[in-house]
Order: sequence, then structure tokens, then C-alpha cells
Amino acid sequence: MENGGLCKQGSNSSDDELVDLTRAEQDLAEDEPYLDQDQTAGYSNGSRGQVGSAGLLDLLDEGVPGVGTYEDFNTIDWVREKSKDRDRHREINRKKKQSDLALLLSLSDAFSGWLLMLLIGLLSGALAGGIDIAAHWLTDLKEGVCLNGFWFNHEHCCWNSKETTFQERDKCPQWKSWAELMVGVPEGASAYVVNYLMYVSWALIFSFLAVILVRAFAPYACGSGIPEIKTILSGFIIRGYLGKWTLVIKTITLVLAVSSGLSLGKEGPLVHVACCCGNILCHLFEKYRKNEAKRREVLSAASAVGVSVAFGAPIGGVLFSLEEVSYYFPLKTLWRSFFAALVAAFTLRSINPFGNSRLVLFYVEFHTPWHFLELFPFVLLGIFGGLWGALFIRANIAWCRRRKTTRLGHYPVLEVVVVALATAVLAFPNEYTRMSSSELISELFNDCSLLDSSKLCDYTPLGKGGERTANFSETTNGLPDRAAGSGVYTAIWQLVLALVFKMFITVVTFGMKVPSGLFIPSMAVGAIAGRLLGIGMEQLAYYHHDWPMFKGWCSPGAKCITPGLYAMLGAAACLGGVTRMTVSLVVIMFELTGGLEYIVPLMAATMTSKWVADALGREGIYEAHIRLNGYPFLEPKEEFEQKTLAMDVMRPRRNDPPLSVLTLDGMTVEEVEGMISDTSYSGFPVVVSHQSQRLVGFVLRRDLVISIDNARCCQDGIVGASRVLFTEHAPSQHQGGPPPLNLRPILDLSPLVITDHTPMEITVDIFRKLGLRQCLVTQNGRLLGIITKKDILKHMAQMANRDPDSILFN
Amino acid sequence: MENGGLCKQGSNSSDDELVDLTRAEQDLAEDEPYLDQDQTAGYSNGSRGQVGSAGLLDLLDEGVPGVGTYEDFNTIDWVREKSKDRDRHREINRKKKQSDLALLLSLSDAFSGWLLMLLIGLLSGALAGGIDIAAHWLTDLKEGVCLNGFWFNHEHCCWNSKETTFQERDKCPQWKSWAELMVGVPEGASAYVVNYLMYVSWALIFSFLAVILVRAFAPYACGSGIPEIKTILSGFIIRGYLGKWTLVIKTITLVLAVSSGLSLGKEGPLVHVACCCGNILCHLFEKYRKNEAKRREVLSAASAVGVSVAFGAPIGGVLFSLEEVSYYFPLKTLWRSFFAALVAAFTLRSINPFGNSRLVLFYVEFHTPWHFLELFPFVLLGIFGGLWGALFIRANIAWCRRRKTTRLGHYPVLEVVVVALATAVLAFPNEYTRMSSSELISELFNDCSLLDSSKLCDYTPLGKGGERTANFSETTNGLPDRAAGSGVYTAIWQLVLALVFKMFITVVTFGMKVPSGLFIPSMAVGAIAGRLLGIGMEQLAYYHHDWPMFKGWCSPGAKCITPGLYAMLGAAACLGGVTRMTVSLVVIMFELTGGLEYIVPLMAATMTSKWVADALGREGIYEAHIRLNGYPFLEPKEEFEQKTLAMDVMRPRRNDPPLSVLTLDGMTVEEVEGMISDTSYSGFPVVVSHQSQRLVGFVLRRDLVISIDNARCCQDGIVGASRVLFTEHAPSQHQGGPPPLNLRPILDLSPLVITDHTPMEITVDIFRKLGLRQCLVTQNGRLLGIITKKDILKHMAQMANRDPDSILFN
Repeated sequence: MENGGLCKQGSNSSDDELVDLTRAEQDLAEDEPYLDQDQTAGYSNGSRGQVGSAGLLDLLDEGVPGVGTYEDFNTIDWVREKSKDRDRHREINRKKKQSDLALLLSLSDAFSGWLLMLLIGLLSGALAGGIDIAAHWLTDLKEGVCLNGFWFNHEHCCWNSKETTFQERDKCPQWKSWAELMVGVPEGASAYVVNYLMYVSWALIFSFLAVILVRAFAPYACGSGIPEIKTILSGFIIRGYLGKWTLVIKTITLVLAVSSGLSLGKEGPLVHVACCCGNILCHLFEKYRKNEAKRREVLSAASAVGVSVAFGAPIGGVLFSLEEVSYYFPLKTLWRSFFAALVAAFTLRSINPFGNSRLVLFYVEFHTPWHFLELFPFVLLGIFGGLWGALFIRANIAWCRRRKTTRLGHYPVLEVVVVALATAVLAFPNEYTRMSSSELISELFNDCSLLDSSKLCDYTPLGKGGERTANFSETTNGLPDRAAGSGVYTAIWQLVLALVFKMFITVVTFGMKVPSGLFIPSMAVGAIAGRLLGIGMEQLAYYHHDWPMFKGWCSPGAKCITPGLYAMLGAAACLGGVTRMTVSLVVIMFELTGGLEYIVPLMAATMTSKWVADALGREGIYEAHIRLNGYPFLEPKEEFEQKTLAMDVMRPRRNDPPLSVLTLDGMTVEEVEGMISDTSYSGFPVVVSHQSQRLVGFVLRRDLVISIDNARCCQDGIVGASRVLFTEHAPSQHQGGPPPLNLRPILDLSPLVITDHTPMEITVDIFRKLGLRQCLVTQNGRLLGIITKKDILKHMAQMANRDPDSILFN
Repeated sequence: MENGGLCKQGSNSSDDELVDLTRAEQDLAEDEPYLDQDQTAGYSNGSRGQVGSAGLLDLLDEGVPGVGTYEDFNTIDWVREKSKDRDRHREINRKKKQSDLALLLSLSDAFSGWLLMLLIGLLSGALAGGIDIAAHWLTDLKEGVCLNGFWFNHEHCCWNSKETTFQERDKCPQWKSWAELMVGVPEGASAYVVNYLMYVSWALIFSFLAVILVRAFAPYACGSGIPEIKTILSGFIIRGYLGKWTLVIKTITLVLAVSSGLSLGKEGPLVHVACCCGNILCHLFEKYRKNEAKRREVLSAASAVGVSVAFGAPIGGVLFSLEEVSYYFPLKTLWRSFFAALVAAFTLRSINPFGNSRLVLFYVEFHTPWHFLELFPFVLLGIFGGLWGALFIRANIAWCRRRKTTRLGHYPVLEVVVVALATAVLAFPNEYTRMSSSELISELFNDCSLLDSSKLCDYTPLGKGGERTANFSETTNGLPDRAAGSGVYTAIWQLVLALVFKMFITVVTFGMKVPSGLFIPSMAVGAIAGRLLGIGMEQLAYYHHDWPMFKGWCSPGAKCITPGLYAMLGAAACLGGVTRMTVSLVVIMFELTGGLEYIVPLMAATMTSKWVADALGREGIYEAHIRLNGYPFLEPKEEFEQKTLAMDVMRPRRNDPPLSVLTLDGMTVEEVEGMISDTSYSGFPVVVSHQSQRLVGFVLRRDLVISIDNARCCQDGIVGASRVLFTEHAPSQHQGGPPPLNLRPILDLSPLVITDHTPMEITVDIFRKLGLRQCLVTQNGRLLGIITKKDILKHMAQMANRDPDSILFN
């Protein structure tokens, strides 16, 4: 028996002394109503203080409060929800055989899931298309306006221009920069100043509007939303977080925030938007409206849809949902998610927001195969990505904690405006920061062609290199490596400055009170670093092709190094370092390039990045934010490493008063009410008698309160002295006195039970896999205590030397 | 309380009456040693009778039998295995801080998983490459031989031929058909007869060799292996199934079986081969050698590798493992599987068995977009696939059951030879059945180009159509639709015959005692049907482009219909109908074509196929074979729909003698030994006393026997009258008599406990998710009974009106 080794540890275990006994009383009071906790949690998300008003807009609320529903900021019981759904399903199956109408209803019930997925895909795809178009237009508005109609963006405005190169085409006469409109000159110092001022002003206006809208209408619309969605999917209730107001406001403010030039992306918020769509559309179907577990299946699929439309990568989106976001992801959901993600991707493509019929955000096509020795710089990029990821998380969490604990958090609007001002002022002078991050990434990923007019492609023309002219015709894989021209050297310096700027500004931007995603800024940092390394490698290979490293595969005049590939790998590495995604990241990037060829470098960079980042800190950015906000999230990936037993974690602790229990038939209504008001537990075990402590079942506080109130008001003869019975059959002989109150219907006769010697690692596994809220502990068959999810989270925090009081909710 | 509704069902539940009480005694005897069961199971896989000899070749065996190991044909306890691994991990972590060497060891331990994946990828990729090359050569050997060297296959032999079209190139002078060699003429009746005879003879030789090798050296090498691998991954022990002899013999016989022209594929067996590689390589690392749960993580990854090399689809392979094969698939395994699948795919590509630098088996490139209205025929293909899948499963299972129960099963060698003879004799006259199934599929998927010389591309030349010549230059998306020529009409008839032939012969082939995969034959059936429909649609569109269905998108002279696409969709639909794969199937097909464009039709066809097939029978072919063989496999996808409670399933049943239990300190060694010999249970609960029935823990029979034997032989003073103690501390005062035997170390103090009112749906969920072997049932705190995995499977079989005795193993 291997477990024997674990269990021999007596009750005087040394681990137990780690438990802070002075906090035992606090622990016992864990179940206080959530509103009291709002005071401490007020800044965790900047919005919890407004729950009252947000509650009005709530779509999650089902109208009739009653037995079997949950309070806000509480954890659901997955086992119960799934049982509920199975009951419903059995009922439908039973009726199916009775009439044709019922058969039809059962069919429509079976297909409602698919219909829901279709609707989510269509709605999310349409919204994503709208957001793309609006953000593109507003971003260009910072630079100028189209005379054909102010609603055209720069590209559409110059659509019919006859110029051939992109740079010339950008300068079509219909598009006027603000300087041209205001002072009449397109170039020169005064034009520069006017353009600068307009750029900054628009940035301020957009960011101010965004933060004001969020504050006024939907406080939950801020941030990326992924930490909260992860928590919700793990079984937590945050009413209004996925409501219609959040959807509307997040959609609008996301456009504004992206256009303002702040260092943020739209990918995370798009996941939130898609989940809002999913949640709202759930209300069309009773099956999903009334069941928290079923609804979470839909939300898992919706998060796949979000990534699918963000990157045009449906398979990557599904894997993202599986790997990063979802908690309970059965295979049925996998298949439906895939369907929804595809519908969304094709809806987006038919809207065609990028004007190029491409599904993907950054379409790249590389022509050169990579060489085995290049894995070395690829791994270097991975190390950079991992280091940056780990440092970013630490810096960002420190800054966010500062925001929570100091006066900084009292001025969210001011903060956003100041950061937007700083961003705009610093970004405008540098071409690579002035453009939007997605444009920057596109440009960095790009493999230079002969006609490319970008500064990054300003290489010494072929033929001037003398001896290399002859070899030109040999290269079929694209242009050969060339010496960098002055444009490239200018670009290098601008990119270095842009890199430093982005690295710092992103730390303060993520977590502000506007919708803000992290994918694009992380990728931008990585892409800059990667492109720089790529150019360096390219020049090294050009000037030193006789070095051992290049010998044999990089002959003069050949195309050896693709700087765009380095940029892509850098982007993947940094994104991996920040989010710790693995498979989904590689698949998303694979869907961007469309060739299996580059999966090996991608894998090398991502793997290195994850290892380096994990060595510096186990948590990804989303887990770190979950912990910062104190959500009750039981990380499914992290192994529980301690050797503690259930008895070390359960309450009551030693020296505490015994567990409050109900008895099968020995208590009166008054006694039960007294126990309810004296304690704040969310539920009570029912035992045969106080002496034997043999367990019968478990009753939830909320159900008990509702049932007793209901009985007192509407049931004849129920008074304080009435006996409360949990027995199967009422006593046949009425023993005089008031009629008894039978509460057996609300008694859960199948509570999960573990023994006091169960190792905590197994207990944690049971909680995770079954989605429990609580679990009863017995010793030699006698009820001894109870373990709730919160107890486990507190215990894990203690074991990791963190503050166990950081877990705020049930 | 929703559960309340479920629990109110009293112990006199009507469902309970379904339980066959006359079989209670048999149920109680469930734990008889597996060898006794071999007699009944002898034909389930044709090999169980040879376990004794297979045991000699066994690599799973760890040499020292002892506490904590499992017997053959038993289920592992996942909870215990995972605890063991965590203990090991903790130990390493503890030592890590003590010395540099230990730190190094801990690092090597952490990376051993990756190293193992690398090795599995390399080995499986190499084996798959070898199998491809050998099978290609042997297949061509049936038709002729190369004069440059008999080891060249047809394609390599004619590699340097200067002919331009493929058909001409095939007729290079170095390659001689058997007729040319033997009778000296390449054409004519005598040549045909000679070629026919040689074809049939080689087929007979190959198939005879294959079945003889399987029978003589590795009986486990037969079949596809996927049902058994699914069962093993779910926690079952079949010693030798993944051993080195199985690997060697399966590799060789797979080549022979494929070359013999039998209607079977190599995809399923490749999964088995990859799993054998994984299992064998596990022995290099103690971490995996000694832990059944960790080993199963590796095997999950290996099954992904198998599909990855079979189709050149690494992402599809990982999803196949996740969706179809694996039971416990943590995210860490996902990432590692992906790595291994990639390594294997690239190893295979560097071996380049298809000679075209392609990773994928059937590379297709379509040039025409599909039209929305085409979804209608696509759905028709889905319906065909679903119907065929469901019918195939029924027919194949009926045939296999016949093989198990009649004398047919006594002559496996004869059966194979007869089927091979029939296949060869019937296949040779028809060009489309004479070629190997993979070649057939390739040809059917192919989109006709102008130079194509295949009969399927024999359309009326352009220009002869008169009015259409002018339009030719307009079409850039490939060749326009044309009237079918005589070649196409001949091909249609041959394809119809091939379809009928393949549909029947595959039913009797799958399940014979040679390695046989099902992917390729299913795909071939679907591809033929799809191509036929595609040609039909094409001709319809050509002749009736004014029909409402074609109006608007199919103008004369345009390319509207791609028959190759229909073939691909048909293949996907049939494969989906047989295996019920969904996401992985779509992704594998997506990786073949490389364009997101065709995912929507694929999804439509696959989805329809799955729905239709599911309506006719819930089980896929693998589940059906698992059930046929009586493996203890708890299907993770199937919902448990019944409303029974744990008390209806647990043993002892009502009217049975009470549960055999041990007490904490009240029994002697003799009494315990008596209980062991009187019963055949695989474990005994330990209670405080017979009166109280309060549960302390659980002891496994195997551990108990080993411990008592060990104590009797080697521990002083242990005699029959010695007291057996399970207490924490030995009684301080020696009460006279022989010294007691303390067995606390083998006592599992944390057995999982449920109440008698727990609904079976929740119990099944607990068993599935935690991977339990058994679970104890209490009523009001008193031990009442026990539920094992086998009890659950029997109960599920009863509920589905199947024979509960079909579950053979523990």
C-alpha cells in the first residue's frame, strides 16, 4: 500500500504547525455574506462596490430566487448542476415516447446546442468584424481624414489610387493629414507640430471616452477579462460579468482603447465579448439558462470563438480554450467549440475587415527553409521571451498591487488619461510606435520582396555588390542576403527605442480601467526583438559567410536568414513567456503561416520560453491576476506537492468548538433557526444523533433558510417548537405537539465523504475533478469535520507562504 | 436540493428488479484469478490462451512481484499510482537541496519525459518509414520485378525514365511484369493469366506468412490494436501486449498483410507499433518503468505519434489521441504528445518513403472554391457515410461474434488464406481493386489536370465542345467542367464494382488474425462513393447548367464541381461513421489539404455522418470491439442515463451473506487466512468491530497474502494464532500469547466512500474521473457494501439489456 506511507503520519504532524491557529476563528467565519466582503474587495476589480447597480442589469439572475440557486460571488456545485441536467434529460426522454410533440421537443432540445453555437459564431464574428473596421477607422482618424467621406479609413480612401508602391499609394490626394487641412502644408515643422498635437488630442479623447464609459455603465468591462472568465468557468458566479451592458460597453470602449494608441490589444477583450454573446444567447434556451454547468460548456466554446476571430485561427482558438481557459471541457464541447469557432471565422471573413480576404490577422509567407544551426538563435529568442514574460508578470503585478493599496487606485480616469498622454507624446516621434501595434507586427513579420518600400527592406541593391550579381539568378527561394542600407540602420535604432518604450509602457497599461488585451503588446515586444536579432544574423551571415557556423549552408549570394521568421518566433516566445500557452500558441502561429515547416522553430522558441519563465515564477499572467484579485480558483495544472492530510485542513481545527450539525429528528425549528443565526456556514451536515456522529447527509444553508421561511409563512401549524425531520417517513404516530416539518427534500443524501487520513493531494484532485464545493471528513466512520474549496485554497496559499486571507470569495 | 429528488427513491426501487438476483453468486465470485477466465475468453482475441508463453516475452513485468504491483488482466488504481509518483517526486525534491549530484539527478528526472518523447518520435518515425518502403516494394512485387535490382519498387525502378506522362513512365524497360519475365510477352491472354496467377500467389504467400508469424510468435500482434490500447490506457493490465515481440512481429506482419492486398490499412496497427515503442522505451527510465499511471501518459503520447506518422498529420494525431484513445490526458501530456508527434513526422519526412518530400499520405490541392448549394450533396455523402458506418459495425460485430462462437474461430490461418485468396481473385480483374487502397484513394482525391492520363480524367477535350472554346481563357481556377469521355464511363462501372467488393470484403477482413487497420478501407469505400457522386454532379452541372440549382454560380465553361473534393468528403464521412471521430478527423483531413477553405464541407459531412450513425447505434467500431471482447472499459463519453442508486449496484445484494470484513484488532492470522481462502474478493474493508461496522480502511487481497506469507516465513513468532493488527500503535502491554502481526503499512486509510443513496450517475462519474478500482458504500455512517468497476460495467450492461456476463475481467 503506497498510501500507507502517507497515512502513517500521525495527527501530530509537523506540517500542522504551519497552520496559523490564531486565525481559526476567521476561518470559521468564512461564509459571511459577500456584500460585507465587498469593502475589502472594492479595488480588486474596481467594480465590486457597484454590484448593486450592476445587479439591475443582470442577465444571469433568474428572477425567482429559491432552492437550488446560488448567491453572487459563490462557487457552484458541479455535481448538483450535472445531476439537475441529467434529470431534465431523463424527463425529456421519458416524455419522448408519449407523444409526437414531445418527440419534436426532444429533438429541438438536442439540436439547441448546435443552434446556440451557430448563433454565437455569427454574432461574435459580426462583432469582431465591426470592431476591426471601427478601430481601423478611428486609428487613422488620429492622422488625418478622408475628403471623400470622413467614414473612410486611410486604406479605403486611397483604394482607387493608381500608385503602384504602397508608400506612394498612401499619399493619395483624397486623404488629408490634419496639418494639410489646418495649416495647408503637408511637410515641415509647423505641419509636424499640428499633426503631433492632433495625434495626442485624439488619443486623449478616445482614452477618456473609454474610461468614462466603463466607469459609468459597465465597470466589469475593463481589463482583458480572461482571469475572470477562467474563474467563472471553474464554477464561480459573478453576476453581470457577462451581461448585455458589459457586452455593449466593452465593444465600444475596446474600439476606443485600441484606437487611442495605448499599448494594448483586442484579443483578450474579444474573448470576453464572445463569452458575453454566449451568455446572453444562452437565455434563449431553457436548457442553458437554468443550468450553471451547461452554461459553462457554452462559455468554454465562446472563449474558443473569441480567439478564433481575434487571430483567424479556429483550431488554435479551440486549443486555447482547452489549454488556457476552460475547466470542464468534455469532448462534446470540443466538437461544438470547433463548429462555433469556424462559423465565427467565416463570418469574419465574409465581413472582410482587413480588405484582403484573409482570415488571419498577420498573414505571412516565408520562402526560405531554416537551417538546423539557426535553432541556436531561436532558442536565444525563447530565453528572451521567457525572461521578459517573467519580469513583465512581476512588474505588472507589483504595479497592480500598488494600484490596489495606494491612492493611485482612487483616480482611475486620471490614470488612464495620463498614461494615454505619455504614450501618445512618446509614441508619435517614432514611426514604429506611432503606427498601431498590429501594423507594426505585420511589418516586422514581413519577408522583404524586391518592391518593398519599407525602411526595413532598404538593403544595398543587388548588382552594386559586384561579385554577387552573377549568383542572383540561382536563388529561387526569394531575395539573397544583402548588406543593410541606411534605411535598415535607421530602422534598427528606432526599433531599439520602440522596444524599450513598449516594454515599460505595457507594464503600466495592462490592468487599467479600460479593455486591454495583452497578446498584441507582448507579441510586438517579441517581434521587435526578433527582427533585430534576425537582421543581426542576416548581416553576420552576409559579411562572415566563411564562419564555421554559416559554412556549408550559407554560400555567398544565397538567401540564408529570414528576419521576418525571427520576428515571428520572438513574438511567439514573448507571448508564451507571459501567458505560458504552449500547444495553442504553436497552433495559432501555425495557422498564421500555414506551413508545418516552421513548427519546429516555433516549438523550440516556445518551449525554451516556457521553461525559462517557469523557472523564474510558476504563474502565468492570468493566474497571477486571479490570485491578486483573490478569486477562488483551483488551478488544474499545478500539482499539489505537500504531504499534508485532510485532517490538517478540515475545520473545526483542534481546540475549536465541535462542528455545528443537525440531527435526523432531534431538533426543533427554533433550534435550527438559532444555529443558522449563530453561525455563518454555508451548509450543515445531518447526523443520526450527536452521540454517534454517524453521517446521514448535508443541507445547504440557503436551502434551509428558504424552506423554513416558506414553511413558517405558508404551512399550517409550523411553529418554533415544531420538530425538524430529515427522515424518510414521518413518524406514524403523532406524538402530540405541533406537526413536524419534514425537510428531507432538501437533504443531500449523497455528500462526498473522505477519511481524515486522505492525503491532501488526493483531496485536491477530487475537488478539481468533480468540481466540489465542500466535502465531509470522517474518522473511523464518525463525522469529524468539513473541507470547503476555500479551505483548500487557503491551505495551498499557506503552504506556498502566501497570505491565506488573499482568497476572498467562496 | 436537486439531488433530493434523486435520492428519495427508496430501496424498493423498481429499477432494482431488473437486477438478476440469481446471478448474485456469480457476481460475488468476480475476483477469481484471470487464468480461470482464459477458457471463456480464449477466442475473444484469439490469443489469451497463450498468455503463458507470451508472459515469457513480457517487458511489462518488473521482475520482483510484491506489494503494490498488479496481476495480469486487472485494473490499476489510478489514485494509488499517482500518489506513488508524487511521493517519488517529493523525495527527489527533498534530496535536491542536499547535494549538487541530487540536483543534477532531479533535472535529469524532469527532462527524462522530453527525452523519452524524442526517442519515441525518432523510433516510430523510422519504423513507419521502413514499413512504408517495405510495403510499397512488396506490393509492387506482386506485379513484377525490377531488373536493376529486385529491391527496387516500380517507381524507384523507373525513376530515371524519360517519359513525361505518368502512364508512359510506368512502362519503363527496367521494370518487367511477371508475364514478360516468364512468357516473354507483356500483353495478351497468356500474359494476363500469368500475371493473374502470380498476383494471387504472392497474395497467398504474404498473407500466409503474416498469419503464421502472428500465431507463432506474438498472438497479440493481430487486429488493429486500438480497442486494446484504449482499454490499457483506461487502466487495464495486459502483459506483453506492448512488448518487444509484439513490436517486431507486428511490424513485419503489417508489411506482409498490407502487401497481400487484403482490404486493410496500416493506420491502426501503426498506433499499436508506436505504443509498443513507447512502452519499451519506458523501461529506460525508472520514473515510467515503475509507475503504471505515468506509463499511460507516455502511451497516450505514443498513440498520437502513431496517427501522426500514419497520415503526416501531427496536430490531428494529438487530437485523435485526445478524442479517441486516451483516458487520462493532462495538459502536460498534450504538449509532450505534440512534440513527439512532430519529431516522428519529421523523421518520417527525412526518410521520405513516398519520394515526394511530402509529409502527408494523400496530398491534395484543389483549385475551385465550393458553392453553398453543394452542401446538399455533401450532406448526402455524410448520410451515406453514417449509414455505411453503422451497418459495417453491425455486420462486422456479427461476423466476429460468429468467429468467437462457432468452429470458424478454430481455423484462423485457413480463414486468412481463404479471404486473401478471395480478395486476390476478385480484385485482380478490376484495376481499381488491384491497386493498393492508398493508391486508389490518392487517385480518387486527385483533381484532374490537363496532362492527367488517368481514366478518371478522360473527359471530352475542350475545343471539341464548340461553343466553349472561347471561355477557356477565362477560367483561372483549373479546368472547366467538361463532358465525360468513355474512360470516365468505364471508370464509373469499375468503381461501382469496386465499391460493392470493398464493402463486403472489409466486413470479413477486419478482426482476422493479422494486423489490420480500418482507416484506409473505410476511406476507400467513402472515396469511391464520393467520387461517383462528384462525377454525377459534375455532369449534371455540365449538361443542365440552367437548372435552378446551378443557376447563378455555374455558368457554362466554368469550373464548378471538383469530383476529388467529393471523394475526400466521402472518405471523411465513412471514416467518421465507422470510428465516430469528429474534431480529429476534420483536423487530419485539414492537414491533408492544408486549406481552411474546405473545413466547412468537411464539417458538414462528418457531422451528418456522426448523427446518422449515432441514430442507428451509439457505439463506434472500437467500443463495439471492446464490448465484444469483454474488456472492463468505462466509456468516458457515454452518459449514464439510469436513475439507479449505489445501493442497487453494490454487493452484497439483499439476501446475500454480509460483506466479508476484517476488524481492526480482533482477528488471528488463521482467521484471516481462512477468509482469504474462502472468498475470492480482491480486497477487504477493515472496520472497527463487527458490531459497529464503522469503516477504518481497505486492504487489497494481493498485499494481504504477500504480507502474511512474508511474515510467516521470515518474522519470528508469527503463527496461526497471532493477532492481526491494523492499529496505529501496537498494544503497549503484551497480553501473552504469540507476538501480533501489524499490517497497518498495507492498510489504505483513505478508501473512497459514498453513501448508499448516491445516484449511480454520480458514482459512475467518480469512477471515471478518479480512475477508481473500487469504492465503499456506507449507510448512515455504517459500512454496507462495496462497488467495483466490474459491478458498474455489469450494471450498465444490464440497464442496456445486454448480457452482464460479457464483462470478463477485473
